[in-house]
Amino acid sequence: MIIVMQPAATPADLDHVVSRVTALGLRPHVIVGTERTVVAVVGDERNAVSSGLESLPGVASVMPILAPYKVASREVQSEPTVVRAGPLVVGGGTIGVIAGPCSVESREQIVATARAVKAAGATGLRGGAFKPRTSPYAFQGLKEHGLELLAEAREATGLAIVTEVVAPEDVPLVARYADVLQVGARNMQNYRLLEAVGRTAVPVLLKPGPAATVEELLLAAEYILDAGNRQVMLCERGIRTFESHTRFTLPLATVPWLHARTHLPVVVDPSHGTGHANLVESMAAASVAVGADGLIIEVHPDPKCAASDASQTIDLPAFARLMDTCRRIAAAVDRSVSPAPPAP
Amino acid sequence: MIIVMQPAATPADLDHVVSRVTALGLRPHVIVGTERTVVAVVGDERNAVSSGLESLPGVASVMPILAPYKVASREVQSEPTVVRAGPLVVGGGTIGVIAGPCSVESREQIVATARAVKAAGATGLRGGAFKPRTSPYAFQGLKEHGLELLAEAREATGLAIVTEVVAPEDVPLVARYADVLQVGARNMQNYRLLEAVGRTAVPVLLKPGPAATVEELLLAAEYILDAGNRQVMLCERGIRTFESHTRFTLPLATVPWLHARTHLPVVVDPSHGTGHANLVESMAAASVAVGADGLIIEVHPDPKCAASDASQTIDLPAFARLMDTCRRIAAAVDRSVSPAPPAP
Amino acid sequence: MIIVMQPAATPADLDHVVSRVTALGLRPHVIVGTERTVVAVVGDERNAVSSGLESLPGVASVMPILAPYKVASREVQSEPTVVRAGPLVVGGGTIGVIAGPCSVESREQIVATARAVKAAGATGLRGGAFKPRTSPYAFQGLKEHGLELLAEAREATGLAIVTEVVAPEDVPLVARYADVLQVGARNMQNYRLLEAVGRTAVPVLLKPGPAATVEELLLAAEYILDAGNRQVMLCERGIRTFESHTRFTLPLATVPWLHARTHLPVVVDPSHGTGHANLVESMAAASVAVGADGLIIEVHPDPKCAASDASQTIDLPAFARLMDTCRRIAAAVDRSVSPAPPAP
Amino acid sequence: MIIVMQPAATPADLDHVVSRVTALGLRPHVIVGTERTVVAVVGDERNAVSSGLESLPGVASVMPILAPYKVASREVQSEPTVVRAGPLVVGGGTIGVIAGPCSVESREQIVATARAVKAAGATGLRGGAFKPRTSPYAFQGLKEHGLELLAEAREATGLAIVTEVVAPEDVPLVARYADVLQVGARNMQNYRLLEAVGRTAVPVLLKPGPAATVEELLLAAEYILDAGNRQVMLCERGIRTFESHTRFTLPLATVPWLHARTHLPVVVDPSHGTGHANLVESMAAASVAVGADGLIIEVHPDPKCAASDASQTIDLPAFARLMDTCRRIAAAVDRSVSPAPPAP
Repeated sequence: MIIVMQPAATPADLDHVVSRVTALGLRPHVIVGTERTVVAVVGDERNAVSSGLESLPGVASVMPILAPYKVASREVQSEPTVVRAGPLVVGGGTIGVIAGPCSVESREQIVATARAVKAAGATGLRGGAFKPRTSPYAFQGLKEHGLELLAEAREATGLAIVTEVVAPEDVPLVARYADVLQVGARNMQNYRLLEAVGRTAVPVLLKPGPAATVEELLLAAEYILDAGNRQVMLCERGIRTFESHTRFTLPLATVPWLHARTHLPVVVDPSHGTGHANLVESMAAASVAVGADGLIIEVHPDPKCAASDASQTIDLPAFARLMDTCRRIAAAVDRSVSPAPPAP
Repeated sequence: MIIVMQPAATPADLDHVVSRVTALGLRPHVIVGTERTVVAVVGDERNAVSSGLESLPGVASVMPILAPYKVASREVQSEPTVVRAGPLVVGGGTIGVIAGPCSVESREQIVATARAVKAAGATGLRGGAFKPRTSPYAFQGLKEHGLELLAEAREATGLAIVTEVVAPEDVPLVARYADVLQVGARNMQNYRLLEAVGRTAVPVLLKPGPAATVEELLLAAEYILDAGNRQVMLCERGIRTFESHTRFTLPLATVPWLHARTHLPVVVDPSHGTGHANLVESMAAASVAVGADGLIIEVHPDPKCAASDASQTIDLPAFARLMDTCRRIAAAVDRSVSPAPPAP
Repeated sequence: MIIVMQPAATPADLDHVVSRVTALGLRPHVIVGTERTVVAVVGDERNAVSSGLESLPGVASVMPILAPYKVASREVQSEPTVVRAGPLVVGGGTIGVIAGPCSVESREQIVATARAVKAAGATGLRGGAFKPRTSPYAFQGLKEHGLELLAEAREATGLAIVTEVVAPEDVPLVARYADVLQVGARNMQNYRLLEAVGRTAVPVLLKPGPAATVEELLLAAEYILDAGNRQVMLCERGIRTFESHTRFTLPLATVPWLHARTHLPVVVDPSHGTGHANLVESMAAASVAVGADGLIIEVHPDPKCAASDASQTIDLPAFARLMDTCRRIAAAVDRSVSPAPPAP
Repeated sequence: MIIVMQPAATPADLDHVVSRVTALGLRPHVIVGTERTVVAVVGDERNAVSSGLESLPGVASVMPILAPYKVASREVQSEPTVVRAGPLVVGGGTIGVIAGPCSVESREQIVATARAVKAAGATGLRGGAFKPRTSPYAFQGLKEHGLELLAEAREATGLAIVTEVVAPEDVPLVARYADVLQVGARNMQNYRLLEAVGRTAVPVLLKPGPAATVEELLLAAEYILDAGNRQVMLCERGIRTFESHTRFTLPLATVPWLHARTHLPVVVDPSHGTGHANLVESMAAASVAVGADGLIIEVHPDPKCAASDASQTIDLPAFARLMDTCRRIAAAVDRSVSPAPPAP
């Protein structure tokens, strides 16, 4: 880390900084500049997180140099992680597509959707059974019955089931039914939940909160990885900005940025990322072009009757067109959309 | 709600909208404009949340008219709610001040801080025992032992204890020690936790996430109120914006905005809201001037040695100065900082 | 527009609103709801901009229904505008690519770059002669000499010259050399400049400010269109958000959103939009996939020696690869990157 | 500046960086860390702006240490600048208040407003004659006739006239009438205009754009200072964020942050900063409490009839109350609202 001293810092201030850095087990290098003195600190600065150096007299600012995450880093593992859950393969040049309704509503709805999205080429089926809702007055999901219906849809189609878990105490239950556990945007920093899914052997899809930085997302992933579960997919689902014409702003440059820093695969969610059904197909296409390892798309047989997220949900013919477009773009950049090659 | 039709909408589209609105138990009024037709909808539109009207053919947009929250609303209760927890009184013209360290570290630290902040005029003691931390490698708190130390500090000073609870399963434990349960920014949409604190009789301090809108904050409060707990304080602790010179951007206009719409008292946290110790006093002063019902301030006997949040923590003499300034400003606006008048 | 009354509004308040709406030449429709009364207003509400209706007693809020722009709207012209400047064609299924250095530095630099980007398939040459710079201590451009060098590069290659104009008084000079006048992000609301370029017959590339909403961008375009110049290209070059890993956040969903509302073509600038050379190619690919009508890319024979914007500038081989990728993606979505077909 | 090398950087990469730093006239210090090597660079790094160091092979990032502004800096001038324009004094413990309508509309309106705001204690009169408007269809101001009316209001009251100038060619005209030239938010980076006002001897009120960082604001001020005009007031008027319940988000912590870094006085605009008349008084109070050197407030005899910004304009009795509140708060923090003491 680099400690920048104030112009008016005294020699005693500098001595104090140097001795505190040394006490933290790190090595200080003092560099006297024309306007400022800086102290370059050598050693594992992660030990010095929250060490109060910024509060020392004469210190102007402290700039970290090392990324705060470790296990998620490309520097620790240079090979990309490929996440596999039954037919769903995400990463390593294969683009896995997860599709389905926001909420599981009925057997007919979920089985019909599963068959249709499978026919169009999806290998994962999304569907919420436990629904975290902003308003206490909104539909909260079918809960365990929803999980049973998802299991029936898997039976009928073979698709991998991707569903959200909202509390640590629900993890054993949801893990009995799900092939992928989704941690939603509201729970990205629910650390008990991250630890609980980290102790399972079930792959995890981790969605960032709408104001999370990419460093915070990687540190949340680190909680799961650190607990022992290495099958983690990151998800880009949009950030909150001043622009209100879309529900969120979907910053696709995050995909190549993350690929340069982490081995974990990156899935894009153009449904939540835009909030409007008529923007989903083109943003899915852009996601494939930019290098996404997967897509998660809200699809419903009759979007206008969907129990939640109706305005951002596409219908079955639109999903078939979307898959067709994405396959052509993937081919143009020498990658492939599922069905995935058989696991080795 | 107002449904705006597209210019190219057909009469059949309009009929379809009208019949669906009617089916939802609402009454449509069609108004044919020079460029657009709109349908004004009369009735409790909260029943129509997620009803998919935006997805109907010919619909351009749907604009809600009613606020989505109810129990928190001034329209339901016009008198301001006053929250009382022992000597701490927040609301109704009395400004309650909660002060203390980010984390409970030791008996000496927490008791000494409690005595000093009480002497300066605080009536609540903050201190984290269960710490949600962005990095899995950072100090996670003393947990139950921290709660015991907080209870000792209360014994020694009589201050009300304000401490965070991070999971529903911890609520009974934390509620045995705490006078106020804090729900932190990361958990504002952890609905199980909101419901759990809502089922206690302990006052709650609810912090919004850094990208939460004020509507989302009020809907989170609604989960607690709806579960039966009416002693809820809202907290303004800063939002995430492009400006990075402060840790967060502290939008004080939210205080009078909330006062116009909700009866719940509003506490300001200038420590997290700025992230820099040298900005805390002036922003505390501004908070009192703008009408805050309470303050929550990070104070430590030796900030540079604090186990967490060192850079935004002020020392004891600075806190005494801050209280002095806030008392003078409160007097200038005909309000008073604690100690509070005795409860009736 | 819809005027929402407060719950406590009196009949006299309502009468006052109705008579003021009538006085503005508009027709009010009063709708009495269960919790609120609203007044739906029929007529061209653009006449009522800033009419103070929000300040009337008893009024809670005023919601516009019509978009504030007219000439730029799809409702006025449903056919897409195609902008043509020599070999550069932008819109109508043809993707025009503009490439070149941030600043014109020397004859060798600009002519060599022009030849190379032409060989790779660009039809426009960008290069700044008048440089608006955040710091008064930074390189401010070669000014008229830079324009002369651009003209030499056009002579040598036939490429269309795209260069920025920063002040109304410079418009005649720059228009003598340029094939496209660029209005930069800092000048999006420099209305004298918008009017000045609007009075020329030279096509304009209009860049939004980093906090401009899409409505504000379309209103800025409206200034140019209203002054008589219909050859306007909009540019998406990134917005300012809390995310700091990229220079700006590039919200590609704006492209299809704009296509649905305006006939003007949309160019994407992945160089400024990301700020990092290693993100430019993948975001250019995503831009083509999402439906952009053009690209503007910073290219330099030796980026590390560029006089400005070095970190976001790609070299000539990288540009050739980028063009190849974009051509393949364009083909996958049944569109084509330049060279454009001959004008009819 | 600190140059952080990539973990995989080669010795040749490092040599290359070192020789380029040396060629820029700066001194490199290489520090070999456990995971990374960094190069600390000593010398005036402002010479190295845009020097392309970030693009060199093996470089991960470049972090500046020095602030990019000079003349505006507290390090160059430690005494606060006091701006004086007739009776208006801003800075040095005196809070100057500028009040008046958004637009000059008529002799009656501006003279009546001037008399009333003077009676309440304002020393400056605001009023727009040249109005930059987002929409080309909105009222654009009375132009020179508006300036004449402002001069009449000055004649009648002695107040200092504060009015906006929107183009360099208008500076001589506006400077003939104005006591303070306002550069509006849309023109913060109109460098020709900054230079033109910098060449006058008339004090300047500089408003930042809604996405400007504080560094960018200080660099804009630097253009004016560098041209010779040292009478510059900065203005905080709100930034654009995701929160839409106010027109902008007014980040008052910027005031003490700026005071620590620049000697220039800071004026707050709670009218634009909130956009709602009912939030103006409390945010003006908070501005005084936080340490603002001045206020600029939109006041109109009949806000609902104002030609622009009606919803954020307060009436004359509200302004008198606001002044009363601000005077009491100023006294509580040992400062004083105008009328200012006579100039020495």
